[in-house]
Amino acid sequence: MRILLAQLNPIVGDLSGNSLKIITAIQHGITQGVDLVVFPELALSGYPPEDLLLLPTFIEETDKYLQQIVAHVKDLTVILGCPRLNPADDEKKLFNSAAVIQNQAIIGFQDKQLLPTYDVFDERRYFQPGHSTQLWSIKGIKVAITICEDMWQHSDLLKFSNYPQDPIKSFIPLAPDLLINLSASPFCTGQLRRRFAAVSKAAIALQCPALLCNQVGGNDSLIFDGYSCAQDEMGRLRCCAKGFQEDLLVVDLQALCPVYHWKEEPLQMLYAALVLGVKDYFQKSGFKQACIGLSGGIDSALVACIAVEALGKQNVVGVSMPSRYSSEGSRADAQKIAENLGIQLLTIPIESPFQTYLDLLTPFFQNKGVDATEENLQARIRGMILMGLSNKHGYIVLSTGNKSELAMGYSTLYGDMCGGLAVISDVAKVEVYALAKWINRQSELIPWNTIHKPPSAELRPNQKDSDSLPDYEILDAVLKEYIEAHQSPRWIAEKYHLDIDFVQNLVHKIHQNEYKRRQSPPGLRVSEQAFSIGRKFPIVQKWA
Amino acid sequence: MRILLAQLNPIVGDLSGNSLKIITAIQHGITQGVDLVVFPELALSGYPPEDLLLLPTFIEETDKYLQQIVAHVKDLTVILGCPRLNPADDEKKLFNSAAVIQNQAIIGFQDKQLLPTYDVFDERRYFQPGHSTQLWSIKGIKVAITICEDMWQHSDLLKFSNYPQDPIKSFIPLAPDLLINLSASPFCTGQLRRRFAAVSKAAIALQCPALLCNQVGGNDSLIFDGYSCAQDEMGRLRCCAKGFQEDLLVVDLQALCPVYHWKEEPLQMLYAALVLGVKDYFQKSGFKQACIGLSGGIDSALVACIAVEALGKQNVVGVSMPSRYSSEGSRADAQKIAENLGIQLLTIPIESPFQTYLDLLTPFFQNKGVDATEENLQARIRGMILMGLSNKHGYIVLSTGNKSELAMGYSTLYGDMCGGLAVISDVAKVEVYALAKWINRQSELIPWNTIHKPPSAELRPNQKDSDSLPDYEILDAVLKEYIEAHQSPRWIAEKYHLDIDFVQNLVHKIHQNEYKRRQSPPGLRVSEQAFSIGRKFPIVQKWA
Repeated sequence: MRILLAQLNPIVGDLSGNSLKIITAIQHGITQGVDLVVFPELALSGYPPEDLLLLPTFIEETDKYLQQIVAHVKDLTVILGCPRLNPADDEKKLFNSAAVIQNQAIIGFQDKQLLPTYDVFDERRYFQPGHSTQLWSIKGIKVAITICEDMWQHSDLLKFSNYPQDPIKSFIPLAPDLLINLSASPFCTGQLRRRFAAVSKAAIALQCPALLCNQVGGNDSLIFDGYSCAQDEMGRLRCCAKGFQEDLLVVDLQALCPVYHWKEEPLQMLYAALVLGVKDYFQKSGFKQACIGLSGGIDSALVACIAVEALGKQNVVGVSMPSRYSSEGSRADAQKIAENLGIQLLTIPIESPFQTYLDLLTPFFQNKGVDATEENLQARIRGMILMGLSNKHGYIVLSTGNKSELAMGYSTLYGDMCGGLAVISDVAKVEVYALAKWINRQSELIPWNTIHKPPSAELRPNQKDSDSLPDYEILDAVLKEYIEAHQSPRWIAEKYHLDIDFVQNLVHKIHQNEYKRRQSPPGLRVSEQAFSIGRKFPIVQKWA
Repeated sequence: MRILLAQLNPIVGDLSGNSLKIITAIQHGITQGVDLVVFPELALSGYPPEDLLLLPTFIEETDKYLQQIVAHVKDLTVILGCPRLNPADDEKKLFNSAAVIQNQAIIGFQDKQLLPTYDVFDERRYFQPGHSTQLWSIKGIKVAITICEDMWQHSDLLKFSNYPQDPIKSFIPLAPDLLINLSASPFCTGQLRRRFAAVSKAAIALQCPALLCNQVGGNDSLIFDGYSCAQDEMGRLRCCAKGFQEDLLVVDLQALCPVYHWKEEPLQMLYAALVLGVKDYFQKSGFKQACIGLSGGIDSALVACIAVEALGKQNVVGVSMPSRYSSEGSRADAQKIAENLGIQLLTIPIESPFQTYLDLLTPFFQNKGVDATEENLQARIRGMILMGLSNKHGYIVLSTGNKSELAMGYSTLYGDMCGGLAVISDVAKVEVYALAKWINRQSELIPWNTIHKPPSAELRPNQKDSDSLPDYEILDAVLKEYIEAHQSPRWIAEKYHLDIDFVQNLVHKIHQNEYKRRQSPPGLRVSEQAFSIGRKFPIVQKWA
């Protein structure tokens, strides 16, 4: 039996475009002589469709396109992820489903049973859980179909949920010959390892090969990495589609590839994920060009590298906006990264608007001393300049704040937080350094001076990040424990031999700055718990 | 039997402060000789606690405070809304529960059965649904306890959900003597009428009196209106706590008040809701003073009125920031509203920074003509000025955009969209006019000229809103149908005799401007479907 895993990159809501991709993949399957074509979860609508699912017209149109696709299915079977109307009078009107299509007809649906409602997922908002455990006969082979989360309860790898049902286990007595999983499993560091492990566990439990077809592509904050895969009945990885791009992978069950020893390369994957996130944000929204404020610092240098990789150097404009506090070194570093990347660099000094604002506002400052206000003015002037260029030329501004800064509120709302997309808002500062060094692994792209100098916002004379923030190694460890693992300040203080008040104070700052993050651009999610999506804390609260 | 409905205004996460309020209310109940004190849903944590519920320490602390409260309960019964750990190994670790406390001990918990997952609600993210239907004996009276949504399936008033279970119906065979409902039911226009109707239907179904204790207060975007109530066994409203403030309402079941004919006053309620939303946003976050850009237009005038009502005139600073395009009339109207309200008015003309930016940026505009870029510059200069004052003096900037503008993207990101709270972002322009006239019902507070002149952003010569937008009456009708009722463009075009392309274009604009709204300040929710919370559409999508 030959199976095509159609690892597509749909655009959310683009029913006609997605249908075309689906039909093209089916035709490819036919020319490849496959017996079965499998698509990702909700491939027809794209994942996550969010509240589009609540629009009755959207569901009606989805069904029309599904019927068109069905007409193209002859002499093979197609398993297609799509929403379907729940015929019963249940709490929710839809199922997150897989249509099984043969001979120009839908022979049935397998509905998703486990609906995640944690982190970035809120599938209970839209869907009724399915309950049927049945096998599908395809060319005489008994196939079990699952959708994404359905496979995860059995993996023992779920952190945030624990379902009483285990669909994999419930398939055991039916003894399937093959397990299929339709996924839209978003990337985060470590997720591919866990996903391979989950497929492996399912294959071993069912003693049959297990194939997973994953979505690929960036949709707003979420990046889907692809890596659709096939594992044998002993849970060994036998082949795997490309990462971070569309791929049509043919798997021959009778002639599986040799065992594939996958090696995790976290930095390479993280970089590829960020590049794809930027690329698709632009491509899917019809934008081409980005502009980035280049301070000479490491964050903006990293974002520029990612943007050039994603959009091409001709589509990235760097803007150096030096102030009275900018060092010669920073100006030179901004120049150098632009040269190294081969991008246009505009230099627009901010002294004249800065002085104008000081003259204008100082009379209203009631002789209060200089404070963060004047620092914010500079950051906001830069934001205004970037937005002016964006408005005039149709650029999307890429904001360059990292996760550690955002956690601490070490950023200016409407200043450096301006932008259409926050590229590294889920990348902690220590990872920023690691990525920069990885980018420079063969030759200097990011100036080594940028990497080695002490980080500074340069918003006042001789300012250093370390004036306001603890050592990034410590800060990032605390953030990871608190934000991703929900550990208590006391536990963190003990583990890292830190003062409890110090940790409490960091936690307090995280919560206190929720108001800033609420207005930040959407950020690319690459960790298990991002700020921009999947984390919901009140702005006004008195817990921490 | 005498019952105290303790309509409290908790602060989310403020376990010690909320406990103190709860204990004080119990003591008040004791002095009033009541047999039972009822608190709102999740009164101990405040509603909605959001992801605080995912922090194990938060749950542990909640339990400690619960035990302290329990120690204060002698000679009467208390029903207290609080999260509780689920002892079983279910999907979710918590129940949204009501602790029933007697004689310094928790005699049991009644868990919420219907967990809303639509609009602003995502209770399945945190809670396991309860299943027990039992009565509680309190002073020989058989009491049925429900939590908020539990009562709504029976009402036939739910738009977005349809539960297979109906807890009210399941109580019928048990023949309770009294129904209690603990609520945290947020305000929106029309909600109180529906809430009274839901209580009424439940009382009639169970042929017993029904008492609802609702939370009051603003928590971020949500405003809880209070109006806790008692209805008799025929479903007639017999008494009702105050709206939009804390209240301790004693209900004597043996001596109910006469039937109360409640009359809905939508504008008065809407205004009171907005005032409470502003007041609590400041008070609960420890801020006192607001600043508002006063353009002379109706939106900022309305927001200034609300702010003065919420914070006191001494705590509101108006800022007039005229440009080369500001009419004399607008300047005078800004002056007048400040005078009428008795607030300080700063006048900071924006000509000097505007000209500075034009000089600075024009060389980079590549001889492209004047367009929205220059308009946005002006709006952003104003935003920067307000934020400068905010940073220096500790004001919260109140943004003044209305729902119609936000829908159309007729606003400048980082410009007039700057602020800590978007006061009228869920108020359509037609409602803005209605509120302004209602405010002026006795005497002119908002200058009549402000109300009667054609609305304009005054960002270019002779600009009018009507150059870019359709008539607000039409626009707002379309928005209401599309956003609140999920009607299709075709349906809307037919109902209002509009051109389908015109409606499609408006719908397209709504979706196209999702990116702006994603970065707007939190807005007070007063309609059935706000932009700022409870509506989740992708930014990048190709549906509309």
